[in-house]
Amino acid sequence: MSAHRVITLLTDFGMRDTYVGIMKGVILRINPYVHIIDITHEIPPHTVEAANFNLMTAYRYFPPDTIHVAIVDPGVGSKRRALAIESTHGIFIGPDNGIFTGVLTREHCIVTVELNNPSYWLTEKPSTTFHGRDIFAPVAAHLAGGVPLRNMGTEINPDSLIYLKQVVYKANASSIIGTVQYIDRFGNLITNIPAEAVRNKQWNITVGGITINAYRTYSDTKQGNLLALEGSHGFLEIAVHSGSAESVLGVGYGAPVQVNIVKKRGT
Amino acid sequence: MSAHRVITLLTDFGMRDTYVGIMKGVILRINPYVHIIDITHEIPPHTVEAANFNLMTAYRYFPPDTIHVAIVDPGVGSKRRALAIESTHGIFIGPDNGIFTGVLTREHCIVTVELNNPSYWLTEKPSTTFHGRDIFAPVAAHLAGGVPLRNMGTEINPDSLIYLKQVVYKANASSIIGTVQYIDRFGNLITNIPAEAVRNKQWNITVGGITINAYRTYSDTKQGNLLALEGSHGFLEIAVHSGSAESVLGVGYGAPVQVNIVKKRGT
Amino acid sequence: MSAHRVITLLTDFGMRDTYVGIMKGVILRINPYVHIIDITHEIPPHTVEAANFNLMTAYRYFPPDTIHVAIVDPGVGSKRRALAIESTHGIFIGPDNGIFTGVLTREHCIVTVELNNPSYWLTEKPSTTFHGRDIFAPVAAHLAGGVPLRNMGTEINPDSLIYLKQVVYKANASSIIGTVQYIDRFGNLITNIPAEAVRNKQWNITVGGITINAYRTYSDTKQGNLLALEGSHGFLEIAVHSGSAESVLGVGYGAPVQVNIVKKRGT
Repeated sequence: MSAHRVITLLTDFGMRDTYVGIMKGVILRINPYVHIIDITHEIPPHTVEAANFNLMTAYRYFPPDTIHVAIVDPGVGSKRRALAIESTHGIFIGPDNGIFTGVLTREHCIVTVELNNPSYWLTEKPSTTFHGRDIFAPVAAHLAGGVPLRNMGTEINPDSLIYLKQVVYKANASSIIGTVQYIDRFGNLITNIPAEAVRNKQWNITVGGITINAYRTYSDTKQGNLLALEGSHGFLEIAVHSGSAESVLGVGYGAPVQVNIVKKRGT
Repeated sequence: MSAHRVITLLTDFGMRDTYVGIMKGVILRINPYVHIIDITHEIPPHTVEAANFNLMTAYRYFPPDTIHVAIVDPGVGSKRRALAIESTHGIFIGPDNGIFTGVLTREHCIVTVELNNPSYWLTEKPSTTFHGRDIFAPVAAHLAGGVPLRNMGTEINPDSLIYLKQVVYKANASSIIGTVQYIDRFGNLITNIPAEAVRNKQWNITVGGITINAYRTYSDTKQGNLLALEGSHGFLEIAVHSGSAESVLGVGYGAPVQVNIVKKRGT
Repeated sequence: MSAHRVITLLTDFGMRDTYVGIMKGVILRINPYVHIIDITHEIPPHTVEAANFNLMTAYRYFPPDTIHVAIVDPGVGSKRRALAIESTHGIFIGPDNGIFTGVLTREHCIVTVELNNPSYWLTEKPSTTFHGRDIFAPVAAHLAGGVPLRNMGTEINPDSLIYLKQVVYKANASSIIGTVQYIDRFGNLITNIPAEAVRNKQWNITVGGITINAYRTYSDTKQGNLLALEGSHGFLEIAVHSGSAESVLGVGYGAPVQVNIVKKRGT
């Protein structure tokens, strides 16, 4: 018994249509000895930023030889490049549009290839709308089967890849400015301020003119109360105990937030 | 070829975020020789009652050595206990908040353990919000790999577990009182009255002031008509042929229902 | 290491309830050596037409020995027949209500069986509402395990199967009449006019009184613009770049469309 290689899928295709099922069929027809895991298919359509956040915060929990296929691809059919990147923790396959920004700031690239060898595609003439089926899924299946990455296309310089414009946050002794970078299903507002920035400090957070106190966990407040806390993704979050901070605050993606450092804890 | 152990997941995490994918990554990194099956991730947030119903009506269809991870956990981060229960049909992992009430009334506990040994967690310092990733998923993966349950923590008395307050139904010769305990995606209202209670009897059901006749199956009525029937879960249900009883009746969770026994069939 | 047989599931059960998870439990309890793939469970309830479209456009991407279980079954519990069809590309299991129309027009039937042998069911007395669990899933698991199809019931003549009324399209030298046969999650309107009909021709399409020009791909237009194109399913589609054609046009299932051939490209 040997372990099957893990291939993950992260897309904005949704689960209503058959796009995801078709990609899995294509993979299994080429290579049945894989374990396919859905990270999510509910990225808001065409939102590369949300895909980047979700991939960046998920990939490290998978085995280091996992093949991650990430497709939010508004430029499909244009000249944008198709990529496969072997990194220090996983192989990443998808379009060159910034979707791998978070990964690339955390890992080193070992080999970066532009996927331009049709021998490993489903067809020599891929559709102009569904490279997940025609290029990315078959390439992932062949890689899982042991075909070397360099055979898949032309090696390119990772410095040439497209990066998302990173949201800047600036800190002084008493405050840190950031934004809401993601909103999860519970309506929790996930900022781009890492939890380390407030470690061992007392703090609160201001968003939409309201200042919200920090707690260790939901149950330290009453149901329905706003709270700020260190989220499980490693960023500061704004939440409502048994409710939705998004609904209560009427705040969305990109909303500015300000963390206020009150004093060092215990001093 | 030996069969992989089955691990099921049942949560209120939804499929939009990466929580479920991350749990699968954590499991596969510890133990790639498992078969992970989603029961559902669309439990209404924080609704332990719905999780209990869904788990209670699903687990017996799985192999008896299946490991079921069930997480609807509004108390995460508080002092509530984390549990693993080896029963006469399956191992159950999740918080001690009543989520296993239905299982515990149907099965015997063989071993019940409070999960307090961090050796089998993802990290010695778990987050305060995501024990699915940090405690429950790794424990499931290690159990599937053969680590004995007793190594995972302290054995406790199953009588000390938290149970949901069971909805009472009282019957007399001609009527049974119950409630709507679950509403499925089609808008079918699933009561807590077991089908056995009306076996071989003629009956109808009153809900929201309307009395609805019992039929054997949808197609015994016209499209759009209300009907009551023995549902596939083993409870009496109220449905609309090719429609939604929830919408037609405007009735929700916990609504009272009354079954009226008309006479014995065939007498 | 031998490859596990692939079983696909396509239903209108949704992912909110446990119906799909239960079917997987039933399959794995009978036969753990299978690879279960979801094609979709979000078919609009009771819409056999949408199930037919999704199955027809997906099955060929799977290995040719795949077992496809397709259940949109408003007649469950009535006298409608339960089927298993071994075809030239896959085995198909589901109700006899037209759901296999597209498959049957593309493949030859090798063996067609009415599933009436309860030895391979979950129970001799199946429920009247959930044949997915009681009949179709167990039959799929036993087939994957090598039980011959003919053991499962009575062989029947494939000419006796129910077909969906195919939408007719008629062409003359300059126009083709068709309809919207499917609307995907992005709001793309998928017509029933095959892309071959306009290959090497210049064309536009009229729907709801508006005429829309054809482009090769989304990025050949501005964001927010309507376009017509050859879709990845092999049919002509109407789309909005980074938007929803369904919302912009207010057009639904079955809406008439007319393709206008302008002239041969390059002449």
